[in-house]
Amino acid sequence: MNDLPNAAVRALAELFPSGDLLTDAADCWAYGYDNSKRHAAPQAVVFAREHAQIEALVALCNEYAIPLIARGRGTGTTGATVPTHGGIVLSLERMDRILRVDPDNRLLIAEPGATNLAVQQAAGAHGFFWPPDPTSSAVCTLGGNLAYNSAGPRAVKYGTPRENTLGLRVVTGAGDSLHTGVFTTKGVVGYDLTRLIIGSEGTLAIITEATLKLTPLPEARRTLRAVYTDMRAAAHAVAAIMAQPVVPCALEFIDGAAIDMVRKHSTAELPQGAGAMLMIEVDGARAGLDEAAEAVAAAARVSGCVSVELARSKAEVEALWATRKALSPALRTIAPKKINEDVVVPVSRIPELIDGLRELGARHDITIVNFGHAGNGNIHVNLLVEPDDPRQAAAAEACLGDVFALVLRLDGTLSGEHGIGLVKRDYVALELGDSALALMHAIKRQFDPRGILNPDKALPPPRLDAAHNAR
Amino acid sequence: MNDLPNAAVRALAELFPSGDLLTDAADCWAYGYDNSKRHAAPQAVVFAREHAQIEALVALCNEYAIPLIARGRGTGTTGATVPTHGGIVLSLERMDRILRVDPDNRLLIAEPGATNLAVQQAAGAHGFFWPPDPTSSAVCTLGGNLAYNSAGPRAVKYGTPRENTLGLRVVTGAGDSLHTGVFTTKGVVGYDLTRLIIGSEGTLAIITEATLKLTPLPEARRTLRAVYTDMRAAAHAVAAIMAQPVVPCALEFIDGAAIDMVRKHSTAELPQGAGAMLMIEVDGARAGLDEAAEAVAAAARVSGCVSVELARSKAEVEALWATRKALSPALRTIAPKKINEDVVVPVSRIPELIDGLRELGARHDITIVNFGHAGNGNIHVNLLVEPDDPRQAAAAEACLGDVFALVLRLDGTLSGEHGIGLVKRDYVALELGDSALALMHAIKRQFDPRGILNPDKALPPPRLDAAHNAR
Repeated sequence: MNDLPNAAVRALAELFPSGDLLTDAADCWAYGYDNSKRHAAPQAVVFAREHAQIEALVALCNEYAIPLIARGRGTGTTGATVPTHGGIVLSLERMDRILRVDPDNRLLIAEPGATNLAVQQAAGAHGFFWPPDPTSSAVCTLGGNLAYNSAGPRAVKYGTPRENTLGLRVVTGAGDSLHTGVFTTKGVVGYDLTRLIIGSEGTLAIITEATLKLTPLPEARRTLRAVYTDMRAAAHAVAAIMAQPVVPCALEFIDGAAIDMVRKHSTAELPQGAGAMLMIEVDGARAGLDEAAEAVAAAARVSGCVSVELARSKAEVEALWATRKALSPALRTIAPKKINEDVVVPVSRIPELIDGLRELGARHDITIVNFGHAGNGNIHVNLLVEPDDPRQAAAAEACLGDVFALVLRLDGTLSGEHGIGLVKRDYVALELGDSALALMHAIKRQFDPRGILNPDKALPPPRLDAAHNAR
Repeated sequence: MNDLPNAAVRALAELFPSGDLLTDAADCWAYGYDNSKRHAAPQAVVFAREHAQIEALVALCNEYAIPLIARGRGTGTTGATVPTHGGIVLSLERMDRILRVDPDNRLLIAEPGATNLAVQQAAGAHGFFWPPDPTSSAVCTLGGNLAYNSAGPRAVKYGTPRENTLGLRVVTGAGDSLHTGVFTTKGVVGYDLTRLIIGSEGTLAIITEATLKLTPLPEARRTLRAVYTDMRAAAHAVAAIMAQPVVPCALEFIDGAAIDMVRKHSTAELPQGAGAMLMIEVDGARAGLDEAAEAVAAAARVSGCVSVELARSKAEVEALWATRKALSPALRTIAPKKINEDVVVPVSRIPELIDGLRELGARHDITIVNFGHAGNGNIHVNLLVEPDDPRQAAAAEACLGDVFALVLRLDGTLSGEHGIGLVKRDYVALELGDSALALMHAIKRQFDPRGILNPDKALPPPRLDAAHNAR
């Protein structure tokens, strides 16, 4: 990687006080990682505190053709913030103010470095919450949530960032500052740039402020655990639950292999004959909530259902969640470098997906453990492999290709909330057609004509027109 | 307007059987209108029945540089489908199949010519509905709903088409066929072209199929009518209702001037001292619904509240809605060519908006009647003028400019659901900055490089760079 031009380094130093600028390779090293465990070294790291700094930084990067990679706290799992082309990593973690909480208008304005938790706390003080709730909520930042369109369990009832964001303030790759969207829950003036930028993984623009749509906190919640003889029965229960009117605020599942893991590696208690499990939560006003929980429980009692338990106390809620919570540590113990996909299929196709995954696991000799957000059909498929072993890495790669082909055959999509980044980029063309990809690249060029923003992420490299036309 | 080239007419005749092609000026005339009452004559009208025809039509229009304007049933109010540059009007009303209803996956796939009502009926047979519910539901088409991002009363609880559409099949202005989005409620592969196309008023692509997200029909509904001494009191009640946890599925208001209209021109009964009125509906499971209605009623009882009535029977529901329903006919009697805007402000700013509108009405000597979707802050501002009278037309134009400036000063937006089309196009630059507009034009060029799709609608004409830079 070439060094940054001296003039650029001098300009950076003028723009960012010494504590907010790292240029020493050792200092920069940690900012080359995300939770994908991929790494590439940036040539500089800057910590912005103001919109105007970012505007100047983008101008600088355009002038010197320096790649610019925005990041929050690095909890992403797809390598989207790994600076594979070098350049400057823009950390937004110090630009973390909650600028306004406006309960009368059900909105909150915050900077991208605010953690999801900080947003929830600021909203919660007024009786509201912001629905997106990634597992990493305590540390992940709002900017990252928006960049990936990250969701979590509550999305089944409350939607993803795209359904819960009113507007953005951004600096485009071309260096233009603009506001997108509105401060209201309706607005149809101009094209919807807000949703276009959400989920674009920092390739179109850098978000410097977001206006979030808040939802009133429910008065109460009921937690249920349903156990099944096997995954097919659990999958049928998911479809039955989603086909009745009460929408749960969480509808999580773990499969038999996952239950085995938990049994071996934790003390969480599980009923005999558990081949799959659903965790279900229902929230809302106190009045009517027991009836809602009962309606969901009734739908959950399909053939193959072993038990449906309702937690009666906070301790019981925790006991019911214990299995689910024991899972991630158990998986990390067994396979520290496991490959975790987050494919999505229509809810009614979950049984076919689970059956297909079992076959693929057998064919490629890989243990596959599945859990995830069943209500959205969003399944976290975990390949328990050691990718540093070349044989296992090759098997995993072949298996992943088969997994994605299966998902697309079932009308699914490759990622529900983790995004594409680097690690899934080369599979995107399996899902998106040539025309759609060409259009996305064309849109990218309008936002970022010099291609400085997070180059080569989210989309596979554009095909040459000649090659395209020859097909 | 020039005639279409003979070769183009021959190609059209090959593509569309005689019953699906109009070229006679008299036959075409009616397709030059929409509900804005604006008119321009198209040179041909075609009725598509298949995606492939539209693909071929777009290719033809590109070849001969013919403007192509897609339309449904012409219920739009902004002139968005009026063929101001001539060309071909593509009516989608005969491409109206419901292709799939999939209750297990809570989705419905339909063609753009299906009416909103047909979509509701097809979904309703399985216990579901599609939330967008424009007043014109019985006749307006799905394609139009998506083109404008049209909503209606239910949006306050259930959102607009952007929150209720999973994916699209389209033909872009360049002639490329593509699928956008997914068949699932989560998906983050590639940029969000679905929402970009929704609300773009036929300027980017022609929608040939839409995959809609369905919502379970609520078991029951409660209807309330709250009467206030004046509009300020009603506006405070709206803010109070939106600040508590129960979200109504309708929160409509009519102001004092509107109540006067109804009093004079209908037999609907109104309590004495009614200076403003709210119609409120709450829906959900039967269990807990009375408590929910009571919570909303309690919030509605702010200072200045004259009465809050709950309908106990279907007849009572109809009686409560009678005033609201008498309003539109009354307004049409008084001012057949009234100007109807659909501005939006944050809910807490409604009192300022209403006060400001009263001042503007007095200043410009125009009766202004307001009603609309108060829960979204989406106010239908009706200027009762006779636009064929030059003095009144000039006053209306001046007044409109002031109305929009007021709305923007209150952090609002020019349109909540009617769109921009032709009639509001020249005001868009008041709301969107130069950079955002330039970017939208650049995006338009990527979808539609020859500019054949609905030219000069939705966005004001691009500024010349020279003029722009000179500012």
